[in-house]
Amino acid sequence: MEKYFKKSVLKLDGYISPPQKEYLAKLNQNENPFDVPGELKEMLCEDAKRLAWNRYPVNTSPELRRRLAEWHQVDESQILLGSGSNQIFQTLLSAVIEPGDKVIYCPPTFSLFDMYADLYGGDLIKVHHTPGANFPIENLLAAIDLHKPKIVLLCSPNNPTGYEMTLTDLERVCNATPGLVFWDEAYGEFSDQSAKKLLDKYRQLIISRTFSKAFSLAGLRFGYFLAHEDIITQLVKINIPYNVNLFTEMVAIRLLQNLAFMKKHVGYLKKERERLYNRMREIDGITVFPSAANFLLFKSTDDTNLFLELKKRGILVRDVSGYELLDGFQRVSIGSNEENNLFLEKLTDIFKD
Amino acid sequence: MEKYFKKSVLKLDGYISPPQKEYLAKLNQNENPFDVPGELKEMLCEDAKRLAWNRYPVNTSPELRRRLAEWHQVDESQILLGSGSNQIFQTLLSAVIEPGDKVIYCPPTFSLFDMYADLYGGDLIKVHHTPGANFPIENLLAAIDLHKPKIVLLCSPNNPTGYEMTLTDLERVCNATPGLVFWDEAYGEFSDQSAKKLLDKYRQLIISRTFSKAFSLAGLRFGYFLAHEDIITQLVKINIPYNVNLFTEMVAIRLLQNLAFMKKHVGYLKKERERLYNRMREIDGITVFPSAANFLLFKSTDDTNLFLELKKRGILVRDVSGYELLDGFQRVSIGSNEENNLFLEKLTDIFKD
Repeated sequence: MEKYFKKSVLKLDGYISPPQKEYLAKLNQNENPFDVPGELKEMLCEDAKRLAWNRYPVNTSPELRRRLAEWHQVDESQILLGSGSNQIFQTLLSAVIEPGDKVIYCPPTFSLFDMYADLYGGDLIKVHHTPGANFPIENLLAAIDLHKPKIVLLCSPNNPTGYEMTLTDLERVCNATPGLVFWDEAYGEFSDQSAKKLLDKYRQLIISRTFSKAFSLAGLRFGYFLAHEDIITQLVKINIPYNVNLFTEMVAIRLLQNLAFMKKHVGYLKKERERLYNRMREIDGITVFPSAANFLLFKSTDDTNLFLELKKRGILVRDVSGYELLDGFQRVSIGSNEENNLFLEKLTDIFKD
Repeated sequence: MEKYFKKSVLKLDGYISPPQKEYLAKLNQNENPFDVPGELKEMLCEDAKRLAWNRYPVNTSPELRRRLAEWHQVDESQILLGSGSNQIFQTLLSAVIEPGDKVIYCPPTFSLFDMYADLYGGDLIKVHHTPGANFPIENLLAAIDLHKPKIVLLCSPNNPTGYEMTLTDLERVCNATPGLVFWDEAYGEFSDQSAKKLLDKYRQLIISRTFSKAFSLAGLRFGYFLAHEDIITQLVKINIPYNVNLFTEMVAIRLLQNLAFMKKHVGYLKKERERLYNRMREIDGITVFPSAANFLLFKSTDDTNLFLELKKRGILVRDVSGYELLDGFQRVSIGSNEENNLFLEKLTDIFKD
């Protein structure tokens, strides 16, 4: 295949899908444990029958953008819609990165950052952030100053560490960076801050959000960007036309008209996150890290393979030990109260043996 | 925006969405005039209520691939799924084209070919095919021989001309090309041939198909590639994970279990295409071209602006006069019998004045 594909593709192992075997609790993909409420699903499925499936959606879904604009108090021209936020992340990098362009990011972080930046030939500059350590803002600013990056990729709250950068740090990055600043807020609803109030101040800032976590919509694939109108204007040109399907579009519009259930689930999960964090801190044999997202990063203080031990006991967590600096680390999504209790019980079990 | 975006993006006008105004007949997007049958939609919407919308789909949708493999008599490892075929076309080009790589295609053809090839820095080599003229196979082979392209992009039946290349010509292209050969069969169900029988013979051949036309599913965004397993293995690595949403996945599976209605609609539309073609040939003042797809290319023999004249009369066709070699040309999708009669009536009207 050497003559057909780029080296950056050939060398990849490819995305490993999480196991889909039987389990007592599936806490490996940062999904919301609560589905969209049944009565809302009923109504939406009735409405779906009346859609014309044979017709293309209206390109760029003006109504959905209007609803999002209303919620975020921005203009609808500041919104780009995606079939999941990863789809428009690819659009963004394809529009920006030419071979050799500097891309700065802070591993360990979301795995698609370096995969797509590398695919487009970006020259990847890493500023590592060790879990539990202070955020290396001075290192990051120094790297920006030295390399003058085309784009800086940040995720906050960060997947898979849960760390949340301060908006002050973000402002310092924006002020220092000649290029774009990408700020992934996939877990933003579980935190108490959002960078959206900085959009008016920094024309180069692009905020990414998703309905896959707080909105319980991982299965329907919807995400979006918030940015300056001039940025969106460029991205729309090369975004895949008609990328948001009719069904997802309709569901997303309806969920924006019913924010109450999302907020209720988020409140519940934030409480559970704090409870789980405090309980995990009491378990001898593991270290757990604070998180502003709907998951917690943890590891055993000895050589116990927590992923396998938990799996044996029916609990699926995400093994993130392949990430830089995360050898032996695991990530557990915040589930329902029952799921979290099961997880705690099994985790305690492991160290009883 | 010069410091943020590639020149190839800045220079683009962007995709122009077709007008969404009121009309008597919408014949501008090559949609199927028939929706998925009502009783099937009812059943699918009932099933949709029982899906867990909060959970990610199973990555690469094994069941859907198995059904497609069965239908096409290929192995499921030969199938790549897309959220529409355009999404995986972007995946393909991003995996293959590095700046300066030669890309050969035959305009006028599908507009996203050159847009995405140019975005990734491809050096675009055009072999023009004038509507109505013989296919320039010798020119194409000479260009391949001269430029040794990384990829050749072909669309057959070709959008927007309706021209169908012979499989003999395709084989000559495959034999001559050192790189990949992309063969877009978006309209394949409306033709009597498919390149799929050549997959075993040419490891470099990639066939693109969609559910947006024959399967009446433009609104739900689903398309796929058929290719050698080794090609798919590379593409899967960088394809967007979980790209096909749960609802679309379920609907596509069910449609593959119920091929009869698709075949019935395709049979109807092929008959209507021939009827419309013959009736249009009888109209003084226009030229119409043969087509193997669900649309017809035509133009006035004088300066009449057919797009505007038809629009005035409530008929939306696709103005393709912006394409190379197609100044003054229009494309009309094959609609229902009633829509086609309305179109014929209004078209005749124009030349009566």
